[in-house]
Amino acid sequence: MDIERYMPLIEREIDAAFPKHGLPNLHDAVWYHMDTGGKKLRPLLAIATCEALGGSAQEVAPFAAACEVLHNWFLVHDDIEDGDRVRRDRPALWVKYGLAHGINVGDYMSQKVFEMVLSSKKYGVEDNKIFRLLDAVVKTAVKTAEGQTMDINLRASNVPTEQQYFDMVMGKTGHYLTVTMIGAAIIADREDIIPHLIEFGHSIGPAFQIADDMLDMTEGKGRGEIGRDIKEGKRSIMVIHCLGQCTHEEHSKLLHILNKPPEETTDGEVLYVKSLFEKYGSLEYAGKLTKEMQAAAMHTIKKTPEELHELLEFFSDKLVNRKN
Amino acid sequence: MDIERYMPLIEREIDAAFPKHGLPNLHDAVWYHMDTGGKKLRPLLAIATCEALGGSAQEVAPFAAACEVLHNWFLVHDDIEDGDRVRRDRPALWVKYGLAHGINVGDYMSQKVFEMVLSSKKYGVEDNKIFRLLDAVVKTAVKTAEGQTMDINLRASNVPTEQQYFDMVMGKTGHYLTVTMIGAAIIADREDIIPHLIEFGHSIGPAFQIADDMLDMTEGKGRGEIGRDIKEGKRSIMVIHCLGQCTHEEHSKLLHILNKPPEETTDGEVLYVKSLFEKYGSLEYAGKLTKEMQAAAMHTIKKTPEELHELLEFFSDKLVNRKN
Repeated sequence: MDIERYMPLIEREIDAAFPKHGLPNLHDAVWYHMDTGGKKLRPLLAIATCEALGGSAQEVAPFAAACEVLHNWFLVHDDIEDGDRVRRDRPALWVKYGLAHGINVGDYMSQKVFEMVLSSKKYGVEDNKIFRLLDAVVKTAVKTAEGQTMDINLRASNVPTEQQYFDMVMGKTGHYLTVTMIGAAIIADREDIIPHLIEFGHSIGPAFQIADDMLDMTEGKGRGEIGRDIKEGKRSIMVIHCLGQCTHEEHSKLLHILNKPPEETTDGEVLYVKSLFEKYGSLEYAGKLTKEMQAAAMHTIKKTPEELHELLEFFSDKLVNRKN
Repeated sequence: MDIERYMPLIEREIDAAFPKHGLPNLHDAVWYHMDTGGKKLRPLLAIATCEALGGSAQEVAPFAAACEVLHNWFLVHDDIEDGDRVRRDRPALWVKYGLAHGINVGDYMSQKVFEMVLSSKKYGVEDNKIFRLLDAVVKTAVKTAEGQTMDINLRASNVPTEQQYFDMVMGKTGHYLTVTMIGAAIIADREDIIPHLIEFGHSIGPAFQIADDMLDMTEGKGRGEIGRDIKEGKRSIMVIHCLGQCTHEEHSKLLHILNKPPEETTDGEVLYVKSLFEKYGSLEYAGKLTKEMQAAAMHTIKKTPEELHELLEFFSDKLVNRKN
């Protein structure tokens, strides 16, 4: 992956979309948020996929950059919805700029996603391809919002099931993680491989989400604390596994802790939950599921053109073994 | 305006986009909100404009319905940003479903807007026209978010100017009110008239906003109380006028009331502000400005094709003389 060649292509598109010195509390807020994370894994993957399939890096660049904005828009609104006050070890955008600006900046970014994709025309991308790129973005965003609904609903449930968990994860991450590659295939005239990319997403999405669930209990996710998901009452795969194994008394106590407002949950209670997970092997169970889903993803990679194998394996590894 | 023929066309598109029995806290929430207001002035205007210009009602219907969803998405998020707990005399969506669902449902609706416009293809609308419809929607949403930023910023300012007010209003309503007609012109192959429609929006937008400011002090806007804007600290045209006229002591007192959290502002304080507006003729000033802007809008109507005159006059009247 030729990061040094790709990165300026991506940055040029993002810079064109968001003036550095624009409206106070809008453009500075966008940059405050975008600056907090710099890996740009998604747009790099879009360009690398497109080139591997014989497409043009320049033509896919606006779409690639738009995927980075899409990702960041979701994070801005997610932080508010989850009550997360810290993002990548700094105050979340809505904490720094206030709730009203937080929602509005996210909405602004969501529209910029489409503006950026539409701007592909300047590099000669045909209308009907832009049309299909937009369709891919919309489908992804609709599925992600549906998954988010299921996630919020699940958090209010005292009888969460593994089936509900997987439905939610498929909505939230199953499409979203692969839209970058689907766009690359559209630009490269290789729409025949899209079904395989979708199949890949359906395995790597859950693998990523479960690994993400586990990360919260081991190293934290850059939200300033370990066990933040417990405080927020998330029904992680460990929670669902543990609820199905523990005693009646532990069951009540676990739900009581999960259902408390985040700010009232003590670190002692998080430790108690962790000890329950250890007692019932819930982390091991999650680890086993991650490995199974990742193996399934590896299997689907074999169905894609050979020139994508290395890239997809690299992406899988980054997603599942990320540190924070 | 043939409402009986147009309405089923609009409703069919909205029904197709949002299943009545879908995900709990998503689809029921959309319908809870959409049901609260039934006039559908914007989509009706889109179809009427399109037919008046010789275009097809069927072809413009998905775009028209999308404009209704766009309008409602803005309202869902606006209520959260403004802290409005009541919408059309019922609990606002975010109050009924909670903050997290409130943001997510708005995001979902925002994506459905694009899905609906893209679906115009089913009625044979060409890709390049759909492309331009999307471009019109994105431009409008970007400008509206910029205007919203200015509005939130202005509310934090103790030295708001009339110029800032008009910049904000131009962003928030100058484009948004006419996007329906611009889309109709695109479908009807009459893009030559778009500059006149934009000019019309630049007059009718401020006229509408100032009339809306005044409504809050007379009959209320269906948010459960009169003077809600005062409680929220909005820098209306009356506030800006009054701040420029009143004594030093009144100036301090007025800002003190505006800058209090909404829930701490008493009705007695709202009455005091109203008495200041009366003392300095701020409502009369706002009324005079509305008439001037409306007269300017009437002037620009004359530049549009004759077949639109009656429609645009009807729309102007509805916007400026609405009751709540």
